[in-house]
Amino acid sequence: MITTNLSINRNRLENQLKILSQFGRNEEGGIDRTTFTPAELEARKWLIEQFKAINLNVKVDEAANIWATRKGYEGLPHITFGSHIDSVPNGGIYDGALGVLISLEIMTRLYEAGKETRHPFTCVSFSAEEPNPFGLSTFGSRIVTKRLRAKDIKGIKNKEGLPLEVALNSAGGDFDNIERAQIDSKTIAAFLELHIEQGKRLERNQIPIGVVTSITGIYREKLRIIGEANHAGTTMMNDRKDALTTASECILLLESICRDHPSDEVVGTIGELHIKPNAANIIPEEVELTVEIRGKTEEEIRQVVSSWECALKRVFQNRKHMKLDRQVFLNQPPSPMDRDVIDSIETAAKQLSLKTLRLGSMAGHDATHMATITRSGMIFVPSQNGKSHCPDEFTGMDDIEKAANTMLHTLLLLDQSLNNKEGS
Amino acid sequence: MITTNLSINRNRLENQLKILSQFGRNEEGGIDRTTFTPAELEARKWLIEQFKAINLNVKVDEAANIWATRKGYEGLPHITFGSHIDSVPNGGIYDGALGVLISLEIMTRLYEAGKETRHPFTCVSFSAEEPNPFGLSTFGSRIVTKRLRAKDIKGIKNKEGLPLEVALNSAGGDFDNIERAQIDSKTIAAFLELHIEQGKRLERNQIPIGVVTSITGIYREKLRIIGEANHAGTTMMNDRKDALTTASECILLLESICRDHPSDEVVGTIGELHIKPNAANIIPEEVELTVEIRGKTEEEIRQVVSSWECALKRVFQNRKHMKLDRQVFLNQPPSPMDRDVIDSIETAAKQLSLKTLRLGSMAGHDATHMATITRSGMIFVPSQNGKSHCPDEFTGMDDIEKAANTMLHTLLLLDQSLNNKEGS
Repeated sequence: MITTNLSINRNRLENQLKILSQFGRNEEGGIDRTTFTPAELEARKWLIEQFKAINLNVKVDEAANIWATRKGYEGLPHITFGSHIDSVPNGGIYDGALGVLISLEIMTRLYEAGKETRHPFTCVSFSAEEPNPFGLSTFGSRIVTKRLRAKDIKGIKNKEGLPLEVALNSAGGDFDNIERAQIDSKTIAAFLELHIEQGKRLERNQIPIGVVTSITGIYREKLRIIGEANHAGTTMMNDRKDALTTASECILLLESICRDHPSDEVVGTIGELHIKPNAANIIPEEVELTVEIRGKTEEEIRQVVSSWECALKRVFQNRKHMKLDRQVFLNQPPSPMDRDVIDSIETAAKQLSLKTLRLGSMAGHDATHMATITRSGMIFVPSQNGKSHCPDEFTGMDDIEKAANTMLHTLLLLDQSLNNKEGS
Repeated sequence: MITTNLSINRNRLENQLKILSQFGRNEEGGIDRTTFTPAELEARKWLIEQFKAINLNVKVDEAANIWATRKGYEGLPHITFGSHIDSVPNGGIYDGALGVLISLEIMTRLYEAGKETRHPFTCVSFSAEEPNPFGLSTFGSRIVTKRLRAKDIKGIKNKEGLPLEVALNSAGGDFDNIERAQIDSKTIAAFLELHIEQGKRLERNQIPIGVVTSITGIYREKLRIIGEANHAGTTMMNDRKDALTTASECILLLESICRDHPSDEVVGTIGELHIKPNAANIIPEEVELTVEIRGKTEEEIRQVVSSWECALKRVFQNRKHMKLDRQVFLNQPPSPMDRDVIDSIETAAKQLSLKTLRLGSMAGHDATHMATITRSGMIFVPSQNGKSHCPDEFTGMDDIEKAANTMLHTLLLLDQSLNNKEGS
């Protein structure tokens, strides 16, 4: 049952989206709002003003995350929600920003309506979620969840030699005391993030609300395939140790293993490849590739990695004299979302007569890390043509309105059910 | 029947090989004697001195080719033989140089023995046979055979901006009158080149003398495979337009077509590949590759190209939405060697009780072009482990002596048989 008949103000939300999209707008119509750049610092200032205008208590922590809080009437831990406002270079206006602006709109409606909640409600805008020049994506959420420590970020600079310390402090952070930003999990009751899907599943199924069941795990390894450089004319086919044909076999096997896996939400990609010596008349001596496998459960990833390893064995049994060097450098497990949060999203959507689709998030998010310290969930809105990280990124206002209302009522349902003897 | 009991002086030849290998020797033991570099200019000077020391008439033509002639006693066209003394960067001491030094040794023995020949004998050292900074391999032989014209070399510079004109003229060439180097085919009776095999066929069969039946044709095309860049996590396997997996299929098909071809002397290579954007978490949008196919007959090349085109069609039928752009930029037909020259080599070897193996040359040579103006042939000596274009390039002195004597007697047989009413 909907606890109130509150709903968000679509026009205001649309307007705020337009305003925020001016920060870092480039000539192509894309957004250049990489973390800690002047455009992003301006956007932060604007966001803080918006929070203050509705009487939220704003705090910028040591990782430069922005927290904006509204008191609750019981002495309970926080219900926290939000996303990020930084972008990739030449990105779109929705990735991250939409989740923050819907959170702001929800806070604004609660303020206007004088709606009180049992739990304090906190809107968060995390620092540096996107891949950035410091090589630290999901920086803010990893710091607060202790997944990134002071020792891990010592001496980090961007390509121009700008120290992370200087950039972070310019955004209001405190590099020397970064671990003070860590959150005690007792102080937080739940985390909810709204985000564009960045895929086509909602659009294809014509369903407005995605309920994320799990955030993908990511496995990455470097493969070095070593053969022998030789004259492309005088070396007969059977005398060759061709690193590129061997690599091609591996690339196709990964593709077919992932295609054949029963889950749609298993993907494998080789996006990066380096070849030596790379000359038309020389047989390739060495190919280095980066293999990435994603899946929404650890079992899925394990299955693909296991098939992949068998396939590699077979390739190198058949291609004698070829050498293989493997180096696994990332094995981040999937983050299952919390059942209570999932239920609340579905209940809220049902009460609003909106269809929902359960799906895995195949991209990483701040919620990946938040899930390690509190019950977490994510709501996805459809992405037109599945596009993201480009100026073409688009989600229609109808879908945005539906998702925003679903998020608002999910939060109110959680406020009722959590830390409640009658609740789950 | 051997016409005289002449044989070459192995010690002198070995010594000359040692001396020439000092020009451009680098710290790794390799040879840096790229065309028109100071080391190569020094080697040219040394070579000219050697020719002059045995009373040869030396001429440097407009393409800086060095011609050293000994008169014949009948007014007949020249029997010409030789190779080149330039090297690839960090090359070996045999590729090209061995053919020139054996020719020099033959001239020296004829001089010492006071042996007269019906035809004038001419030893040639061609300019710029190897791939070089001006992008003009087999430069000298292409100029004299009219396969490269003045208009084709206008304004050519190396990467450092040095004009070909300046480099060529420093070696004694005459850029402005380059076409004066063209040879009237009436003035030449035959061309013979001795070269290292750069393959393993002689070594594997333990045969010292290779008789080249044809020099490989070379077909090259650029393939541009165009898909769509997309997020490697959120784009399901079936929604992908992956240029790299598509390229991998093409690469493996070329390999299997060439492997399955009944001729051992058919090879296909993809040695050069460029991928965009080349990032671990982005599905490759575009892959550009250079395809090279070699065969010793035009039919072989046609067969492979035809199978390759069918295979490409199949790949792009199966991978809908992928685009393909092809550009054939080289289709040099094979050069069959002359039957009379082949017979003479085999006869000479037989008279010296040396085993011979007929084979195709899978690398291009100056003889490729000379074959367009005169009856031409090539003698191959074994290459240890098939290695060439590297410091490890090696041919033993026993094999060198056998080949040199075979060449000497081949030339004397040709001198008797050519332009002779009783000859073939």
